[in-house]
Amino acid sequence: MASAPADLMVPALIERKRDGGTLTAGEWAALVRGYVAGSVPDYQMSALLMAVVWRGLAPAELAALTEAMLASGERLRFERLDRPVVDKHSTGGVGDKVSLVLAPLAASSGVAVPMMSGRGLGHTGGTLDKLESIPGFRTGLTLAEVESQVRRIGCALFGQTAEIAPADRKLYALRDVTATVESIPLIAASIMSKKLAEGLQGLVLDVKAGSGAFLPDLGRAVELARTMITLGETAQCPTVALITAMDRPLGRACGNALEVEEALQALAGEGPADLMEVTYALGEEMLLLGGVAPDRATARARLERAVASGQALATFAAVVEAQGGNPRVIEDPDLLPQAREVEVYRAPGAGVVVAVEPRTLGRAVVEMGGGRRALGDPIDHSVGFVVTVKPGDCVEAGQPIASVFARDRRGVEVGLAALGSAISIGEPGRRPEPLPLIVRRIAGTEEGVA
Amino acid sequence: MASAPADLMVPALIERKRDGGTLTAGEWAALVRGYVAGSVPDYQMSALLMAVVWRGLAPAELAALTEAMLASGERLRFERLDRPVVDKHSTGGVGDKVSLVLAPLAASSGVAVPMMSGRGLGHTGGTLDKLESIPGFRTGLTLAEVESQVRRIGCALFGQTAEIAPADRKLYALRDVTATVESIPLIAASIMSKKLAEGLQGLVLDVKAGSGAFLPDLGRAVELARTMITLGETAQCPTVALITAMDRPLGRACGNALEVEEALQALAGEGPADLMEVTYALGEEMLLLGGVAPDRATARARLERAVASGQALATFAAVVEAQGGNPRVIEDPDLLPQAREVEVYRAPGAGVVVAVEPRTLGRAVVEMGGGRRALGDPIDHSVGFVVTVKPGDCVEAGQPIASVFARDRRGVEVGLAALGSAISIGEPGRRPEPLPLIVRRIAGTEEGVA
Repeated sequence: MASAPADLMVPALIERKRDGGTLTAGEWAALVRGYVAGSVPDYQMSALLMAVVWRGLAPAELAALTEAMLASGERLRFERLDRPVVDKHSTGGVGDKVSLVLAPLAASSGVAVPMMSGRGLGHTGGTLDKLESIPGFRTGLTLAEVESQVRRIGCALFGQTAEIAPADRKLYALRDVTATVESIPLIAASIMSKKLAEGLQGLVLDVKAGSGAFLPDLGRAVELARTMITLGETAQCPTVALITAMDRPLGRACGNALEVEEALQALAGEGPADLMEVTYALGEEMLLLGGVAPDRATARARLERAVASGQALATFAAVVEAQGGNPRVIEDPDLLPQAREVEVYRAPGAGVVVAVEPRTLGRAVVEMGGGRRALGDPIDHSVGFVVTVKPGDCVEAGQPIASVFARDRRGVEVGLAALGSAISIGEPGRRPEPLPLIVRRIAGTEEGVA
Repeated sequence: MASAPADLMVPALIERKRDGGTLTAGEWAALVRGYVAGSVPDYQMSALLMAVVWRGLAPAELAALTEAMLASGERLRFERLDRPVVDKHSTGGVGDKVSLVLAPLAASSGVAVPMMSGRGLGHTGGTLDKLESIPGFRTGLTLAEVESQVRRIGCALFGQTAEIAPADRKLYALRDVTATVESIPLIAASIMSKKLAEGLQGLVLDVKAGSGAFLPDLGRAVELARTMITLGETAQCPTVALITAMDRPLGRACGNALEVEEALQALAGEGPADLMEVTYALGEEMLLLGGVAPDRATARARLERAVASGQALATFAAVVEAQGGNPRVIEDPDLLPQAREVEVYRAPGAGVVVAVEPRTLGRAVVEMGGGRRALGDPIDHSVGFVVTVKPGDCVEAGQPIASVFARDRRGVEVGLAALGSAISIGEPGRRPEPLPLIVRRIAGTEEGVA
């Protein structure tokens, strides 16, 4: 292997990328190694990253960068496991509590799920933050703990450890403060370098589109999905993507503890229809990729049975207990952090719900204390919204259509204002045109409207 | 004035530039102040600089950036000076010893010339390096020394002091290692932030075009000239540019001490025709801008008289003496560093000289030890070339057409190889088409072929 590049070489590499050229796999490997080792300084890497935002990456460069980031750390190892290892990754949205439901559900249906997740970012919530609303729940597992827990109960829900893709950790922190986040190849490399470290036999991607997604534009979402699928295939990890709707919140609850409560309802068979449809659709793909169901109908039946039998909820309880959380939460969700102030929001007039703007609600959750403005900020898990209407629903004036959960009166006011701005009610008879819940399925070269 | 921006603001500014937007004058001022103070880190500045290479700068942004860089340091002050203060700046080339001749010549013709210059960069030579081949010559003057010397003898030749545009110093060092040098607005801001600190009443730009220039393309050279003229006018410093030929070396000598010797010949009235033509053309502009000559013909006559009378050479001698150099060099150029090895290069065949490739010769001077590969490298002032032919000249086979000056046999070989590659001799009768020596004059909105 080549050693880290001599100092004088890096400007020439930046220059080549700046001028629209490509770097070799060896050059990307040397850059990433040098960056982690400290011989390539932040200021050269940030200039290179901006050149990548500008010029993009050729497929071979993207594969090399991802491989170099992956190679910077350890991987999970599941040799001689009796079940295939499959995971799901979501690009993030508002009210997206799918991971909390799907991980134990898939683990109860024949695949093992070592699900590494993230924290809230911008207006979107994060699975780790949601889980930490369960008193005692510990998301910082070692790789050895993850391996052992997955062997024992089929599932672990944990954060990126120091051992996995340290290059991604360092690069992500740099991108965050240098306006180099919004690049499809850099997003794809960051996600895939972590997911490919999980030792998977298959990966399902939930790529969100619509105003609440990081890439609202459908075309860009599809491009990101295709980019990640190619990376997965290159690394011998079969990868399938569903593009799903994020032009309105998923389910009813937005906010950490509120979403855990809704996830518990879903695992008990009482989840909202849209959340269940997305969860089952992603679960089907996981079982098919894992080869534990011969076809989609069988996969679906198996997932539904895991819910109906209580097995999915039992697996979630086992995960909570294994990771130090209070398992009594499962029976008694009132043990989750409770907001001090709760106020009902009523429809200001009669008509049809035209939009429930997810980004507005997600930002309000952050403002109410349920998300972070700066790294390491403490968060209030209790705050958020429950919105009981969807675009297309008819409402009467004064009808209760949402609730605000806040820690104080100011939070209530922020929340009510956000609801007023997020929920548009139009003339009766006007038909909104929300995205179909599952916009598209993309697998290798095949593609279809679900 | 606004203080340096809070940390969280900088990524938003980078993002706006990245997406093709513009920053306000206040934002540029805060960024530059923050960068000099250390609150804006290198890694954010380099990402922003790459975004500027990508998106460019709107005219108001460029003016604001230049003003902020200028405002980061001190300015020369020449109140109650009996003469107008005018300077010339060259974008750099091979064999470009014009500054050595023009500064004392213009100072002998009625204007004061505080000429701040640079060192060799890439394949091009630098005025400071050339001057330092004069034993004892000190280029590191303080601003007070410059002011006093200019009052006394009308001219000073010195390097960028720590007091002038420290933001440019820091930014230039960063650009050099992050492949963000090649940007017309950034080049223009860097040059003009220094030149505008000289307290000038007028500035003449010698913007080189052709293969030996930093921006070989004529269109880009014109764009750079226009950009700098606009910056000068905005700062109430009337600015004129000549685009001059750098598709072959200027004069005969390339290399530090050799160029000083040629400059001394030029000041004594025995310079090569092309060097004199460029020098006089730039000098005319300086006298016209300074208002010390009513028209071009009078300006020319005055400059020619300063050479013929010996006044120009006497001013150069006064500068050498004032800055610690050995003034006997003027009478006896053999006191300059002498190369150990000198070898004649003969035309390999008969024909017409089609090209004398300047970049090849400039690179060879660096390789022979006459330039730097890394900051702070010592240089050998004695090495270089004297090329006595120009494109269009007819030569016989075996005719001596150049000499190599080197410190050892390896240097001689490098030099002879470079001459063989740089000087193309074609079929008799073939006519090369070199650029006209003065390609174009640009002043404000008017423009004409000289």
